[in-house]
Amino acid sequence: MTRKIKVGVVGGTGYTGVELLRHLAMHPGVELAMITSRSEAGNKVESLFPGLRGVIDLNFTPPDVDALAQCDLVFYATPNGVAMQQVPELLAKGVKIIDLAADFRIKSADVWQEWYGETHACPELLAEAVYGLPEVNRGAIKGAKLIANPGCYPTAVQLGLLPLLGSGLIDDQNIIADTKSGVSGAGRGAKIGTLLCEASESFKAYGVNGHRHHPEISQELGLLNGSPVGLTFVPHLIPMIRGIHATLYVDLIEDQPLESLHARFLQTYRGEPFVDVLPLGEHPSTKSVYSSNLCRVSLFKPMGGKKVIILSVIDNLVKGAAGQAVQNMNLMMGYAEDEGLRSCPVLP
Amino acid sequence: MTRKIKVGVVGGTGYTGVELLRHLAMHPGVELAMITSRSEAGNKVESLFPGLRGVIDLNFTPPDVDALAQCDLVFYATPNGVAMQQVPELLAKGVKIIDLAADFRIKSADVWQEWYGETHACPELLAEAVYGLPEVNRGAIKGAKLIANPGCYPTAVQLGLLPLLGSGLIDDQNIIADTKSGVSGAGRGAKIGTLLCEASESFKAYGVNGHRHHPEISQELGLLNGSPVGLTFVPHLIPMIRGIHATLYVDLIEDQPLESLHARFLQTYRGEPFVDVLPLGEHPSTKSVYSSNLCRVSLFKPMGGKKVIILSVIDNLVKGAAGQAVQNMNLMMGYAEDEGLRSCPVLP
Amino acid sequence: MTRKIKVGVVGGTGYTGVELLRHLAMHPGVELAMITSRSEAGNKVESLFPGLRGVIDLNFTPPDVDALAQCDLVFYATPNGVAMQQVPELLAKGVKIIDLAADFRIKSADVWQEWYGETHACPELLAEAVYGLPEVNRGAIKGAKLIANPGCYPTAVQLGLLPLLGSGLIDDQNIIADTKSGVSGAGRGAKIGTLLCEASESFKAYGVNGHRHHPEISQELGLLNGSPVGLTFVPHLIPMIRGIHATLYVDLIEDQPLESLHARFLQTYRGEPFVDVLPLGEHPSTKSVYSSNLCRVSLFKPMGGKKVIILSVIDNLVKGAAGQAVQNMNLMMGYAEDEGLRSCPVLP
Amino acid sequence: MTRKIKVGVVGGTGYTGVELLRHLAMHPGVELAMITSRSEAGNKVESLFPGLRGVIDLNFTPPDVDALAQCDLVFYATPNGVAMQQVPELLAKGVKIIDLAADFRIKSADVWQEWYGETHACPELLAEAVYGLPEVNRGAIKGAKLIANPGCYPTAVQLGLLPLLGSGLIDDQNIIADTKSGVSGAGRGAKIGTLLCEASESFKAYGVNGHRHHPEISQELGLLNGSPVGLTFVPHLIPMIRGIHATLYVDLIEDQPLESLHARFLQTYRGEPFVDVLPLGEHPSTKSVYSSNLCRVSLFKPMGGKKVIILSVIDNLVKGAAGQAVQNMNLMMGYAEDEGLRSCPVLP
Repeated sequence: MTRKIKVGVVGGTGYTGVELLRHLAMHPGVELAMITSRSEAGNKVESLFPGLRGVIDLNFTPPDVDALAQCDLVFYATPNGVAMQQVPELLAKGVKIIDLAADFRIKSADVWQEWYGETHACPELLAEAVYGLPEVNRGAIKGAKLIANPGCYPTAVQLGLLPLLGSGLIDDQNIIADTKSGVSGAGRGAKIGTLLCEASESFKAYGVNGHRHHPEISQELGLLNGSPVGLTFVPHLIPMIRGIHATLYVDLIEDQPLESLHARFLQTYRGEPFVDVLPLGEHPSTKSVYSSNLCRVSLFKPMGGKKVIILSVIDNLVKGAAGQAVQNMNLMMGYAEDEGLRSCPVLP
Repeated sequence: MTRKIKVGVVGGTGYTGVELLRHLAMHPGVELAMITSRSEAGNKVESLFPGLRGVIDLNFTPPDVDALAQCDLVFYATPNGVAMQQVPELLAKGVKIIDLAADFRIKSADVWQEWYGETHACPELLAEAVYGLPEVNRGAIKGAKLIANPGCYPTAVQLGLLPLLGSGLIDDQNIIADTKSGVSGAGRGAKIGTLLCEASESFKAYGVNGHRHHPEISQELGLLNGSPVGLTFVPHLIPMIRGIHATLYVDLIEDQPLESLHARFLQTYRGEPFVDVLPLGEHPSTKSVYSSNLCRVSLFKPMGGKKVIILSVIDNLVKGAAGQAVQNMNLMMGYAEDEGLRSCPVLP
Repeated sequence: MTRKIKVGVVGGTGYTGVELLRHLAMHPGVELAMITSRSEAGNKVESLFPGLRGVIDLNFTPPDVDALAQCDLVFYATPNGVAMQQVPELLAKGVKIIDLAADFRIKSADVWQEWYGETHACPELLAEAVYGLPEVNRGAIKGAKLIANPGCYPTAVQLGLLPLLGSGLIDDQNIIADTKSGVSGAGRGAKIGTLLCEASESFKAYGVNGHRHHPEISQELGLLNGSPVGLTFVPHLIPMIRGIHATLYVDLIEDQPLESLHARFLQTYRGEPFVDVLPLGEHPSTKSVYSSNLCRVSLFKPMGGKKVIILSVIDNLVKGAAGQAVQNMNLMMGYAEDEGLRSCPVLP
Repeated sequence: MTRKIKVGVVGGTGYTGVELLRHLAMHPGVELAMITSRSEAGNKVESLFPGLRGVIDLNFTPPDVDALAQCDLVFYATPNGVAMQQVPELLAKGVKIIDLAADFRIKSADVWQEWYGETHACPELLAEAVYGLPEVNRGAIKGAKLIANPGCYPTAVQLGLLPLLGSGLIDDQNIIADTKSGVSGAGRGAKIGTLLCEASESFKAYGVNGHRHHPEISQELGLLNGSPVGLTFVPHLIPMIRGIHATLYVDLIEDQPLESLHARFLQTYRGEPFVDVLPLGEHPSTKSVYSSNLCRVSLFKPMGGKKVIILSVIDNLVKGAAGQAVQNMNLMMGYAEDEGLRSCPVLP
């Protein structure tokens, strides 16, 4: 790697941010030039994240567009609605952008407004933004200037369903995604609901009447399918830190041997560095992808029926956020796609 | 309470057993006469369960039928296949039986053999055994001599679906039960898969190709429905000790207002001491029933569709096992149904 | 129990408060008349604590002294510094008070001000307040109008050391209390440090340079000893909800057989309903007292030395807070000391 | 790195073994040639550790000395007492050895026999074995053929005390090590005590009357001190997977400013790649070293006394086992000391 690119991170104080820092600090092609945080400006990164002591020796700085414009690429790890305020100016100055929030994921500004509660600041960029799921959009990502990094649930659900969409094999009007996430998906905000005493030793569903990842998943499944799909999406909170498990239910239109469906999955993901189709009969655990960029997928057709069940697991902070962002950066910058992402899952 | 009945517990060394001991020790109508365990015979109960020091001052004894015959009622908290070897003799001696294992849950000896891998020892008792779900079979339980105490998943699933079964409102051929259980459901055996280092900070499905609770749930849903149902059942392991969360998906045949479905649930469970139908919009957590005999149920019809989602939570060791067994005992013995079961959920 | 007393709870929104509610709701001698909370006034208790749905059907009310004066006894489960503003007026109206915060624990108003950062509002009551550790002050508690309910760490430490204090057997100038607490001890406030993602899968010490329980422990150990003691106190945070484990180190002045020390512990706690001295060689776990009012104590003298190690465990929310408060209420009101406190530890 | 060495791992089925595999798989100077396991011979590594699917494509083989002799270096991650049976023969064939068990840690064969319950098989090697704590024995490790990799508790305790030993500043006859470990320290054996349902939501001490790490710590502290020390050692089990926290208590002979003690720690660890002395006032958490080879140390002198408290944290599976073994391998083989060990702690 002859040259390092200059990289900035806007909003490095959440869990997505710190996971990005962990990955970027280890990446041989990256010079981590600045980390911004309005609230923590002036403080050392290690004061917030003691685990980074000795790894990252930077202070948080205020999010200044002129300073960020010195970077080759800027990651936004900010709350929804922040990136869209600054991205047009940075793009105009030739900076590449990867937004880990939802600002550029929804193609329709109206739908975005409906779910995120405010008018979109730069709807003209929505068409240009590339949805950063490499297994689908690898080519477009390589040439992109603006990446909408997918949400965590959407990543797990799409990678579980991709081989069956547009195939004509399944009833695309009755897809159920029963999904479960570790608590880090709820972010690093001080909220009672995610205190250890509230969230540990408990399990619950949330947002059953409507979750912001629903329109994102619907949109992308529809694109992959070639026509709109009918989706039921129910998220749950798991009493643990990291990991997403999606349990997906679809109905075959005509019966198929499980083996041929499995072959279809293997074919779809042949050569993919980060999607692992398990042998028939195995159940993936979130632990088996802990702290890694892998997605592991398995499929079942129990008791001779037409119901196919797909299990898809990722680490929500890696393949579901920061790792996928680095994978996108690698593609945009011509690095090996797995550069900085080869670490083995931590177990136990 | 003028008189205490003599109660025996066969197999008091597992989690179901110790939970039963906790409940029986506090029950004003019970004299806990003997606790048997082949492997621990002669040892004090507190040597195995230090939490019971000062509460139960008994030694484990070998499982002797003549001794057990001195009891008014005997609970079996044994592995599947044990109770059926002794129950006919005890019944003949006039002892009432509550079996917390699966020996008497399946009405067909053939089906039992298929799922449990051995010939049933007393198929003639299967018709006599009463399935001990008080919300369905209260009357029969009061007169029963032999109770098949329901499984943990089956309890949560049935209580979630009961108000809709036989109603003609739903497609009874497409019921999905995506269920999640704390690790205590896997028992107290020394197995690698349930070590803290394996099961904590992880989430996974298991038994997707077939789980022993499938035929039990199918059978009972069919009885409640008046005709067989089509069921997809997927269990998962939650990294916590106690609690079951069932997420149930059914399709309305014709659209119905959610309010009228909710009214149906309230009507079904009016006066039930242990089923709580939540106000619309609330999501039950397993923590909200921790260590109590409650089942809390909620229902949703998201985004205007015909899919109804029911959430049902119990403590697998209480309403899913020992608490329900005590509830059955109360009914059989003429005690107040909630005697010994009024404790409040422990939180946080 | 012929008559129920009217009880009020001020500040029922924290973990100590909800644990108090759980205990009071089950107490046959208590009519829970009001629960106050400035921030939650008007809301149902169950809206904050869904586990109490069906158990407590009250709304939070504003903390009004005239209303509270209708009660026979009022518990303060408020942050430090609140009770002392209202207690003089309530006492004057004949209401008995149990303060679960620290307002009346420190005998010196100067020391209180030094550690709690404000002037004490009613220093004249400090002498009258009885320190509510029944194993030490049972007689005084029975006649008390104002109880300072002990802190959680202080309870565990004092019950571990009581049999040795004033005995002349140990070097009272070199007592070490290495203590560990579950996260509920940090309260229900929304703070980043107690989020599941921060506090689970981690262990750390805190407050090593000085913790507010230090002066309370020092004062009480000194009183028990008959002269001031030298104390080193280090608290740690355990990644779990409930439980305190104190590991106490003292030096024998002259060697003693462990058996005679053990006999001294058994003698001190003979007849105590809530202190259990374990057989020699056993290590108490916090799980063995989970959700109960028990303190279990064990002692060791390893490898022939003069160092004695005492292990003392309690549930910080029960014997360390709400359970002990109910025990004090029972003594003040002439109820059986263990009324409402007989529940068995929940395990697993 | 021009050449890869051939490395074998004996006993790759425990947590130390799998952590070693994770590190070796990522090490650019290592060809992982064989992984042995008597019980798993013939099975794929991934069948036991699904997280290693796609990372390590090897089958377990029987532990055959001739095959192992093809390696440049062999790690023993076996139970105590296994390595000593094979090591003499492998050493004779020129293979370098790093034993992660206790076989070569104790210099006296008699002491070893007393604590490990069997006669040592090759006492003649005990003098030759180098105790693999690089911060102490770096030079000897570079030339060693046989490394006794330190225990987890001993590593944390020694690195916390090293700057004070032999200094004349402390009372070396009264050192207390109150230590706490995550459950992975108890190994991957199927035991009831380490089931999630037993070990989570609980905290307890164990082995207070004597733990096998006591003689190892005593021996090494004595060597570092230049004379025997008096040590009290109490281990505890934390309800989490990874991490050790040692809380160390020593008495100053004469009072010293904390700042000068801190300077001594900074001086001792200047340039050390894996020991981080925290700024005064900070408390290290085990999370801050999770999955990394770091040891973080902090020291306190609370409330003006002569008692110094040192806090030392490591990941028991990395710096306490596999990471330190790789660090030793790097030194023995002339690699950069931190090769393969630069990964950042995973957080949250």
